[in-house]
Amino acid sequence: MSTGSETTFDAFLGGRLTLEQPTKGYRAGVDPVLLAAAVRAQAGQSVLDLGCGTGAALLCLATRVSGLALHGVEVQPRYADLCRVNATANNIDTTIWTADLRDLPSDLRALTFDHVMVNPPYFKRSSGNSSPLPDRDIAFAGDTATVNWIDTATRRLKPKGTLTMIQKADRLPDLLRAIDERLGAINVYPITGRDGRAADRIILRARKGGRTPFKLHAPIPLHDGPSHVSDGDDYRPEIAGILRDGRDFYLAD
Amino acid sequence: MSTGSETTFDAFLGGRLTLEQPTKGYRAGVDPVLLAAAVRAQAGQSVLDLGCGTGAALLCLATRVSGLALHGVEVQPRYADLCRVNATANNIDTTIWTADLRDLPSDLRALTFDHVMVNPPYFKRSSGNSSPLPDRDIAFAGDTATVNWIDTATRRLKPKGTLTMIQKADRLPDLLRAIDERLGAINVYPITGRDGRAADRIILRARKGGRTPFKLHAPIPLHDGPSHVSDGDDYRPEIAGILRDGRDFYLAD
Repeated sequence: MSTGSETTFDAFLGGRLTLEQPTKGYRAGVDPVLLAAAVRAQAGQSVLDLGCGTGAALLCLATRVSGLALHGVEVQPRYADLCRVNATANNIDTTIWTADLRDLPSDLRALTFDHVMVNPPYFKRSSGNSSPLPDRDIAFAGDTATVNWIDTATRRLKPKGTLTMIQKADRLPDLLRAIDERLGAINVYPITGRDGRAADRIILRARKGGRTPFKLHAPIPLHDGPSHVSDGDDYRPEIAGILRDGRDFYLAD
Repeated sequence: MSTGSETTFDAFLGGRLTLEQPTKGYRAGVDPVLLAAAVRAQAGQSVLDLGCGTGAALLCLATRVSGLALHGVEVQPRYADLCRVNATANNIDTTIWTADLRDLPSDLRALTFDHVMVNPPYFKRSSGNSSPLPDRDIAFAGDTATVNWIDTATRRLKPKGTLTMIQKADRLPDLLRAIDERLGAINVYPITGRDGRAADRIILRARKGGRTPFKLHAPIPLHDGPSHVSDGDDYRPEIAGILRDGRDFYLAD
């Protein structure tokens, strides 16, 4: 089944998962896979993915951990439809809500979750990187301020529930400014291209009602060595294990 | 000359600088020395140290860079007096204002600076670590919120002037929340005990009117190797050069 527009079928987790994605516009890469691997979900728990796109993070998580109650919210109908298609095609049971996170349906607002994961838009609309593609524009830039993403995530967490996010490292101040006193135990894990470089991405984990102090962890390089050595990917074994073998991204507190 | 209470005379920068400090209460350690080494001041420029204590950062900076116009603000008269004594004893010309940074004298409010440096209190008063020593309490915990430190620093900066701070890593969210749109080009340099550890301190540099994105740099370990190997200090050569030889702490943008 296809939604009709131009799409490709892309393998994730070493072929354990196949996602239909639009040819143009936002396409899932490494980041939602890392995000899903970092969520400490256990069988029997519930997970909400805010801005689930075509389902990369949600379905990667389902592939790694069975027995989860999986929900996704996606504002763009085309992506939400593809997410449902992808879940069905991979035999994964999900509930995908086509909704704006600033105005969630009351049925969803009645639910809370053990985990909320977010891979929010990476570029600020104010940066002026407007795109000729409206879908792509929303997926990359977002018209929902970071504070709305964090607030909605926080509201949907159970007490002691865990928020896990991945974002560009240069947006860390926006994330920390948007987090209020409802969340604590904030852990930030810088993701770098290689050892010794500035952070490219950050994974942020916080707990609703958490009290332990903020912690800035040692960076995690994606690649070994000082520079790119071949045209093939050269991920570090830990990272390759996550991307190809569907392993956990173990991020100690 | 001495201010009368119990003090010690402590060598900094390999003996280039001697500071008289209270025996009890806040005593300058490594952090103000690192802070001073990270300020990119050049001869002819002006520098304000907010919360200068007995002058460790201000006088370390003067020892490394000559020809600076040096000002310090200190709320506790005893520390301000010792700072003046220390400046004189080390033949360094400074202007030390005994003042609360929330209510600076109008003569100081008439001035702006090329650089403001801050080594603010490390512990939140709300954390309940009250101390029997009022002086110590203020120096460690502060009764001036982070937002006041950052706001006062921002106001006293010239356009394109540079703020440099050192703070405990777990206070990074407070710092970033307190920084508003007047400051940009925020660079954060995590300082770790050893390679692979979580950040212990952070040095933050920001520019008034700066526009470049936030950058989270690779951590800088103070020590080599995986663990402590001897009773003597075992700083990495770069750090030993700063602490003992008064070298620059070169922190690339």
